[in-house]
Amino acid sequence: MRFAKGHGTGNDFVVLPDPDGRLELTPGLVRRLCDRHEGIGADGVLRAVRATAAGPGALAPATADRGPEWFMDYRNADGSAAEMCGNGIRVFARYLTEHGLAEGPQVAIATRAGTRLVRQSADGTFSVDMGPARVTGAGSAAIGGRRCEGVAVSVGNPHLACLVDWPVAHADLSVPPVVDPAAFPEGVNVEVARLAGDHVIEMRVHERGSGETRSCGTGAVAAAVAAAVAAGEWPGGRPARWRVLVPGGELAVVPGPDASLLAGPAVIVAEGKVSPAWLAAALAAGC
Amino acid sequence: MRFAKGHGTGNDFVVLPDPDGRLELTPGLVRRLCDRHEGIGADGVLRAVRATAAGPGALAPATADRGPEWFMDYRNADGSAAEMCGNGIRVFARYLTEHGLAEGPQVAIATRAGTRLVRQSADGTFSVDMGPARVTGAGSAAIGGRRCEGVAVSVGNPHLACLVDWPVAHADLSVPPVVDPAAFPEGVNVEVARLAGDHVIEMRVHERGSGETRSCGTGAVAAAVAAAVAAGEWPGGRPARWRVLVPGGELAVVPGPDASLLAGPAVIVAEGKVSPAWLAAALAAGC
Repeated sequence: MRFAKGHGTGNDFVVLPDPDGRLELTPGLVRRLCDRHEGIGADGVLRAVRATAAGPGALAPATADRGPEWFMDYRNADGSAAEMCGNGIRVFARYLTEHGLAEGPQVAIATRAGTRLVRQSADGTFSVDMGPARVTGAGSAAIGGRRCEGVAVSVGNPHLACLVDWPVAHADLSVPPVVDPAAFPEGVNVEVARLAGDHVIEMRVHERGSGETRSCGTGAVAAAVAAAVAAGEWPGGRPARWRVLVPGGELAVVPGPDASLLAGPAVIVAEGKVSPAWLAAALAAGC
Repeated sequence: MRFAKGHGTGNDFVVLPDPDGRLELTPGLVRRLCDRHEGIGADGVLRAVRATAAGPGALAPATADRGPEWFMDYRNADGSAAEMCGNGIRVFARYLTEHGLAEGPQVAIATRAGTRLVRQSADGTFSVDMGPARVTGAGSAAIGGRRCEGVAVSVGNPHLACLVDWPVAHADLSVPPVVDPAAFPEGVNVEVARLAGDHVIEMRVHERGSGETRSCGTGAVAAAVAAAVAAGEWPGGRPARWRVLVPGGELAVVPGPDASLLAGPAVIVAEGKVSPAWLAAALAAGC
C-alpha cells in the first residue's frame, strides 16, 4: 500500500493512491492509519480513485459528474466519510499534478460535495472554490470563561466566528467553547479572530469533534465573513481578499455568497509504502 | 533522505538510515521531522550510523566501544540528543534486522550510554537491558489535586513511581504533577501505577518535558521497582518478571539493581523517502 503524507497550513493528510478502486478502506483502517503514534498519523485520509472506479455509492447522486478523472474519497481521522475538505483538496491536487496524474494548473476533482476546481498559482499555492458562505445569525460562546460575541456562518458546515479585540493567542481552546445547544443543535466550529491589519486577521479555531487544529479551511472562510460584516463589506460589498493567519501558516480567502475562494500552500512531506506486516496486523485485528 | 516510522507500545520514532554518517542532522531538522502536522511526526529520531562513521564526539568517551557495528544516534522531538531510549532501541534493532543490516536474534548497539544488547524472542518481541535501577528515596506528588506517595527510582534518569489503589485511568495527567522541587532539582518523570494482578501493574506516565506519553521504558522499570518494593521483593528478592500495561500496549520488565530487562513489541509502520522539496524548504529555513 503506497502512501504520501502532506499538509496544507498544518492540516495533514495521508494520501492513498488507489486508481482502480481496489482498496477496501474500512473506518477501522482509516483510524489506524491516522493514529499519530501507532500509525502514520494525520487529520484524515485522501483516497485518490478514478471517478469511473469510485462506484455508484461513492459520489452523491446529485453530483455523479463523470467529468473529472479523479474522485477525492475523504475520510476524517475517526473513520467517517466527509463531503469536502478545503485544505485536503489542495494537497490532493498537489499530489495528482506532482505524479503526472492530472495536468495543471487547473484540476477538476470530484468530491461528495460535487466537482471542485483547484488551481495552482504561479507562486506555488493552490486555491479552491469552497462554495457559498451564508450568515445565519448571531451567537455567543464562552471561550475559556471569556464571553465572546460572534457571527453564525454556514460554509456547508456550521461556524460561530467571534471577532475579539485581544490577541487570539490568549484564547483557551484546550476545552470546547461553550455555546447555546439550542442555537447549534449539531454542534459548531468556533473561530476566534482579531483584525491584525487592513484585510488581515489572525485566527484560531476549535473544530467540533477534533478540538483545536492548526488550520481549518471553512473556518478561515467563516472568520473572513465575520470580518467583512464588521467592515461593512458584507452583505453586498465588493468581494475582497482577506489574509488569514492561522497557527499552521497563512491562507487567503475571498468570501462570497455564491462562491468563496480559499488559497494557500500545499506540501507533500514524504512518500513511501505502508509496512506489509503492519497492514496485515491491522487487517487481522478486524480493520 | 530515506526513513522508516516505527513504534514500541506507542512510543514512536523516525528511523533515518545513515550508514556513512553523511547526514547533518541539526536540532532544527529533528524538530521539523518530528512535527506531527507539518513533518513525519514522532517522539524522536533514531539515526542509524555505523559506529566507525559516528565520529569521535558522537560516542561518549567512556563508552567509545568500537565493537558494535551500529550506533544509535537518538534525538528527542525537541532536537536535543539523549543517551538511550528503551522503546527506541527495540525499534532500532527491528529496523536493522529487517533490513539485513544486523544479524539477530541478538544485536549489540552502541548508544551514548554505552553498548546495549537487544534480543529478539521467538514470539517477535524485542528485549533490552536498561541498566541498573536504584531506589533513591521516597517522595510525593500532587496529581490533578490528588496527593500520591511514591518511590523515587533512578533508571539513569529520575522517576517518582506512585502506587495507587484506584484505576490509573482516573489520574489527571493533562497538567504536570506537582513535586517538591528541592527533592527533584532536575525535574522528574512521574508514574501512576496500580496492582492489577499477580505481578501485573497498570501504569500511566508523565514525562518531564513531554507530558503524558503512551509508554516509557525507564518509567515501566521504575513502576516495577515500586511494585517490587511494595511486594517485599526489593531489595534482595529474586528478580521477578512484571507485566506492565501502558496506554500503548504491554511491556514486560525484570527490574534489578545491576541490570533491568525491558521487553515488548517493536513495529515498523511505514518506510519511504522524505520529499526533496520539503527537505530543501527545511534547509532553506535554516534547519
